[in-house]
Amino acid sequence: MPNYLLRLSFDGTNYHGWQLQEHDRTVQGEIERAAAPLFGEAVRASGCSRTDAGVHANEFICNFHAKKQMDLSKMRAAMNFYLPDDIAVLECRTAPEDFHARFSCAGKEYVYQIWNGRIRNPFFNARALHINYPLDDALMDRAAKCLIGRHDFSAFCASGSSAHTTVRTITDARVVREGDLVCFYVSADGFLYNMVRIMAGTLIYISNGKIAFSRLPDIVEGGSREDAGYTVPARGLYLNRVFYKEGVLCPSGAEERTDA
Amino acid sequence: MPNYLLRLSFDGTNYHGWQLQEHDRTVQGEIERAAAPLFGEAVRASGCSRTDAGVHANEFICNFHAKKQMDLSKMRAAMNFYLPDDIAVLECRTAPEDFHARFSCAGKEYVYQIWNGRIRNPFFNARALHINYPLDDALMDRAAKCLIGRHDFSAFCASGSSAHTTVRTITDARVVREGDLVCFYVSADGFLYNMVRIMAGTLIYISNGKIAFSRLPDIVEGGSREDAGYTVPARGLYLNRVFYKEGVLCPSGAEERTDA
Repeated sequence: MPNYLLRLSFDGTNYHGWQLQEHDRTVQGEIERAAAPLFGEAVRASGCSRTDAGVHANEFICNFHAKKQMDLSKMRAAMNFYLPDDIAVLECRTAPEDFHARFSCAGKEYVYQIWNGRIRNPFFNARALHINYPLDDALMDRAAKCLIGRHDFSAFCASGSSAHTTVRTITDARVVREGDLVCFYVSADGFLYNMVRIMAGTLIYISNGKIAFSRLPDIVEGGSREDAGYTVPARGLYLNRVFYKEGVLCPSGAEERTDA
Repeated sequence: MPNYLLRLSFDGTNYHGWQLQEHDRTVQGEIERAAAPLFGEAVRASGCSRTDAGVHANEFICNFHAKKQMDLSKMRAAMNFYLPDDIAVLECRTAPEDFHARFSCAGKEYVYQIWNGRIRNPFFNARALHINYPLDDALMDRAAKCLIGRHDFSAFCASGSSAHTTVRTITDARVVREGDLVCFYVSADGFLYNMVRIMAGTLIYISNGKIAFSRLPDIVEGGSREDAGYTVPARGLYLNRVFYKEGVLCPSGAEERTDA
């Protein structure tokens, strides 16, 4: 039975995240609804990540098993035909039998976007957080670098998380400004609940002086949740890239991913 | 009585254009609704252009007269507070008594955006036309250049237009590709109804061979509507810049506008 892998992109504004919910519209729900008539059976899709309501994805990987053999190019066209316009299937592949979008995942990169103009930008309304005072992106970038490494990130984990361990390895973290858009990129082998949003809030607090830069190493090394910054809203958050072990799977554009 | 001028930007997705309508949400309606409590009277705003439903604006100028003297910086903050997030007031000014956003306007620049990737981009869903076969942007740019000059543009005017004359002067026209985004920029002293959208459709037809490039000069010079291309959808269209005579009014960033 083929194990189909889909590379997606979606604007999460109108969705209650990835994971299927009984009463709310979710990306998983739309994928399964689009696939059912195509495969002539109900499918159950696994996503690389649960995402919160309003979170976007430049790249998102899911997979499902189905009996029918499908031409992958036709499958992509048909899925895009059945899906709403704010979700796109960028690519369809077949994966090894035991491939699982979430459990096989070796790492992910998120980006958090901040519109840092004096006046809000209507075109970034549901796509970025608006901060109207000038952010010190150079200081934020230096602070982001302090997050890199293997640490117990419990200071950056929302309460109520069910994670067995709060130790994660951050492989890359940086803040880049392009005009009025300030982007916080962070790659890790895994993320705790709200981790990127709390980190982004912490970098903002470091920029505006609510948290001293000098305190950051202590917060990273065994601080508690109240030491870190606030949880910024979901609408600025994008899952940007998803990494799998070489050989197991190599999504297209993988040549760009050797840095992670 | 001060004549207030506002420089706006809006995402037109959720609006039935600029002009006030009895039953539909319009940008003019929102501006007047936000201004009324601020000025303690009903105001009537004039816009630089009527725009169709779904059309966006990177820059849009409107003006209204009101009795109350307002600090312009506070006025901008208050207007942005009362307005929905998909409309932004970028700047407030006072204009000469006889300034009228539409009648004083010397010219405008529109941009039409085409997402030219194989697969649709969820983030350009309501912001661009998707064309999934490769457009020849170099040919389209050469064709755009043929539009420049003073011509009777009746071939690029939707029927039912009430314009007294169909003669307009196009001062600049070009097609620029940035990755998968193809943008058609066009500046003129004025535009006929659907003119930019019919021109964009004509450039697309020239790229895909439905209209021969060699026929374009004849179409521009006295052709009729059926000779030109189709009317592309509103969602890719942006009012990009608005020009006024020097001295009469000089919106900020005017130094960038000397080319038009």
